[in-house]
Amino acid sequence: MRKFVAHRAKKLITNATASLFNPHHQSSSSSSNQYYTSARLARFFTSLPSDTSMASDKSTPPLTVDSLNPKVLKCEYAVRGEIVSLAQTLQQDLQANPGSHPFEEILYCNIGNPQSLGQQPITFFREVLALCDHPTILDKSETQGLFSADSIERAWQILDQIPGRATGAYSHSQGIKGLRDTIAAGIEARDGFPADPNDIFLTDGASPAVHMMMQLLIRSEKDGIFCPIPQYPLYSASIALHGGTLVPYYLDEATGWGLEVSELKKQLEAARQKGITVRALVVINPGNPTGQVLAEQNQRDIVEFCKKEGLVLLADEVYQENIYVPEKQFHSFKKVARSMGYGDKDIPLVSFQSVSKGYYGECGKRGGYMEVTGFSPEVREQIYKVASVNLCSNISGQILASLVMSPPKVGDESYDSYFAERDGILTSLARRAKTLEDALNSLEGVTCNKAEGAMYLFPQVKLPNKAIKEAEKAKKAPDAYYAIRLLNATGIVVVPGSGFGQVPGTWHFRCTILPQEEKIPAIVTRLTDFHKKFMDEFRD
Amino acid sequence: MRKFVAHRAKKLITNATASLFNPHHQSSSSSSNQYYTSARLARFFTSLPSDTSMASDKSTPPLTVDSLNPKVLKCEYAVRGEIVSLAQTLQQDLQANPGSHPFEEILYCNIGNPQSLGQQPITFFREVLALCDHPTILDKSETQGLFSADSIERAWQILDQIPGRATGAYSHSQGIKGLRDTIAAGIEARDGFPADPNDIFLTDGASPAVHMMMQLLIRSEKDGIFCPIPQYPLYSASIALHGGTLVPYYLDEATGWGLEVSELKKQLEAARQKGITVRALVVINPGNPTGQVLAEQNQRDIVEFCKKEGLVLLADEVYQENIYVPEKQFHSFKKVARSMGYGDKDIPLVSFQSVSKGYYGECGKRGGYMEVTGFSPEVREQIYKVASVNLCSNISGQILASLVMSPPKVGDESYDSYFAERDGILTSLARRAKTLEDALNSLEGVTCNKAEGAMYLFPQVKLPNKAIKEAEKAKKAPDAYYAIRLLNATGIVVVPGSGFGQVPGTWHFRCTILPQEEKIPAIVTRLTDFHKKFMDEFRD
Repeated sequence: MRKFVAHRAKKLITNATASLFNPHHQSSSSSSNQYYTSARLARFFTSLPSDTSMASDKSTPPLTVDSLNPKVLKCEYAVRGEIVSLAQTLQQDLQANPGSHPFEEILYCNIGNPQSLGQQPITFFREVLALCDHPTILDKSETQGLFSADSIERAWQILDQIPGRATGAYSHSQGIKGLRDTIAAGIEARDGFPADPNDIFLTDGASPAVHMMMQLLIRSEKDGIFCPIPQYPLYSASIALHGGTLVPYYLDEATGWGLEVSELKKQLEAARQKGITVRALVVINPGNPTGQVLAEQNQRDIVEFCKKEGLVLLADEVYQENIYVPEKQFHSFKKVARSMGYGDKDIPLVSFQSVSKGYYGECGKRGGYMEVTGFSPEVREQIYKVASVNLCSNISGQILASLVMSPPKVGDESYDSYFAERDGILTSLARRAKTLEDALNSLEGVTCNKAEGAMYLFPQVKLPNKAIKEAEKAKKAPDAYYAIRLLNATGIVVVPGSGFGQVPGTWHFRCTILPQEEKIPAIVTRLTDFHKKFMDEFRD
Repeated sequence: MRKFVAHRAKKLITNATASLFNPHHQSSSSSSNQYYTSARLARFFTSLPSDTSMASDKSTPPLTVDSLNPKVLKCEYAVRGEIVSLAQTLQQDLQANPGSHPFEEILYCNIGNPQSLGQQPITFFREVLALCDHPTILDKSETQGLFSADSIERAWQILDQIPGRATGAYSHSQGIKGLRDTIAAGIEARDGFPADPNDIFLTDGASPAVHMMMQLLIRSEKDGIFCPIPQYPLYSASIALHGGTLVPYYLDEATGWGLEVSELKKQLEAARQKGITVRALVVINPGNPTGQVLAEQNQRDIVEFCKKEGLVLLADEVYQENIYVPEKQFHSFKKVARSMGYGDKDIPLVSFQSVSKGYYGECGKRGGYMEVTGFSPEVREQIYKVASVNLCSNISGQILASLVMSPPKVGDESYDSYFAERDGILTSLARRAKTLEDALNSLEGVTCNKAEGAMYLFPQVKLPNKAIKEAEKAKKAPDAYYAIRLLNATGIVVVPGSGFGQVPGTWHFRCTILPQEEKIPAIVTRLTDFHKKFMDEFRD
């Protein structure tokens, strides 16, 4: 069937390859760039001999780590790195031989994973999820006794928004339209500016959304993405995986991790002088790992800067519900831009939100969305295409994303218990943040900014030279050395600052504020004892 | 703080950058390739002027489709492409103006999405999911009346496997260990060979697992991935997104979409002569879009070929439960390799499984796993790292993946209803496949191989020259033209063969066998009428 005479074969092959990878292909020849794939691929459809000097009879060399994609090798992800592996080993030790270490349990303060440390889910959200998972019980009388009336009502509403009530079907690639309507209404209520359900892309948590934008924007290492230092290592990892260049801007620790536009200008200039096209600016607000909440004026300056410099503004707003100080409030970057008079066409802006954070902390549900505004229809189409290659995000996560943007309201049966659960979690987090912050600031050589928001503290530790030398001997970064010693002595897992980036010569670690409140005093004692002994051992 | 004298600054900066991206960094200098990131990135930490001839005062040009990552632009994904968009528009038309088209509903036969077409979920699975979503009802007396005893028991078992019973927490990056134990036991029971829970990576459906392997294996367009033609366009899309080269091998339509090792050899030789390193071979069994089930001897030949040629075998086995003919059986490639005497160290092999297919069809739950065997510990570590950047797959999907690999057993309270539901779906799918296959084969110029398995038929349509010319005028591939005409006339959505690849000069479409059985006669009538009219219009 494929034994053609050579020239006819070549023609047929080129056409076939073009149609294979381009359903719009016409068999008439064309120089349109619709056909870019055909030239590159057609050569594999012909068996005409070419460069026979190649060692074509040799098998592919065995797969080794050196023959993997170097972008994968470059990528680092500290929050699940070496120290977490050590913690898992210690945990297995403790299970096999209780009493084998000077602590009874591992306290995972390395990652914002509230429910792993005992935080309970919001009852209303879980009621609705359970009913949507198994809708056949919605009509049963026993269900009235087990579930709140408004969770039953909400489950019906959601099911009616899903074509065929099929919670087990792939949805629209952006997510179920009715749920996006709910989310857009929630954004509108939050911001006081319109939101369009067609701008919402539901995703399996915020991480895949970030990857999607990086994949879209990064063409080569000549493309730069502006990131705060310290930053959440998802950004450095994703930029490395997609082969781009992380262009850093430093947050100023001395002013509570402030973001200075003069610093942005300086670093942008430096990057451009190196021939880097800076394509986007990442802002994390409230900050991770730093915990600061940006002032509105600061946000305006950032919007203005992105507008002037032609940068896509990538706003990581997953901690929007986590604010612990009365003097600060969350303002979405979209709200700020709109209040400055910039409309949808004026500035490309992506806001990331997740069900993993906030007071809900539903990390395991992998729900989230990005709101994409200010892109041309052609660019939007490409975002849609990339979303569609993974078909859709999980429906439970989609439902939950709609719930967190539309929780029970005053008057709903669940409202009081919902409010009590929510308030209990948020006020307790604020107290935990304050207690840990005070404890850290009381340690020799440790200074810690206030956690105004998010779920972390990022103290600076002035490590003695002796400790730094000891770390060198152990072939560890000094802050990693400190974190490993802390883990081995106390069971507390933190992430060294070197995983997030820090000003040269300074050392930090990130610690979540998530352990349950009754455990905080013991953590403070253990941390204080450890630090004292560490300093006694190494003090210069 | 960052105003150093130049040479000291440079040194500090290099060290800091190395620590930022490598927590194992030591401040003593080293020529190890651990420091590869520092050289590339250090330049952004210095404000020393360099190439000032660059137009560094100009803002980034506006974001246009032409300035996006060209790999994204190249990627095509036909199963959610142009024809599906048209179908969505028609559906909106029908809702707004009933009677505006010669059909009452759109029948989405473009994608394997059973529950969107009315298939009901397996009750036991949904009971367990609901109970795990809202475990506080497990102890309530009403729950006994609503849920089967074994679903309650199973939910307890699963909760006990989850640290802290926290279904809302991020899990281990590979998935919850206890669930992986269950899955490994299920694989062992299926194959009769051992399976290791540490080889299982739970993922949000099979697609992210495929992307992960492509990301790992593809370094540049000089790396090739061997794919069947026709293929499921996830593969061509993923290879395009990761910048590799799809090396095609043709399935032989004349022998029921047989896979010939001679064809593999010929195409591999041709690719190698072009300087392509073919790194992996994709096999889809049962086949998508082709529906064939490979004979065991054929599988042995493929294993032998991959072993000899040093190729990673990527086995897409998501349709393992969908077999419709008594003369064929599913054998996993791992079972085949082990039965040939190849152990874990002898051949790198990845098996993909999904909760979206089988008799369960839980596409919206986004559950799945890959079983990864035959890689070195160093390579495995890199796979783990990539998995960890996305933290974990969704827990409901993880639970469901464990359930499909460990359904109710004889004697369990749910067994009879489970068996009836499962058997009802599978035997009905077999009848639907046969009815549609016979109907297609009765059409003028259409030949259709048997759907031995999977969820699709992939008939060949000999299109008249007049129709091909008409398609050219409409700037469509001939099979796309046929599919659009079919959709406009009948509301039936199929995917043109050009989206999957086909032998030059042949035209096909893919049609799922998933519409509910009572709708099949009407579909056959509509399809037959349309085809007859189409041929009457264009017959040469």
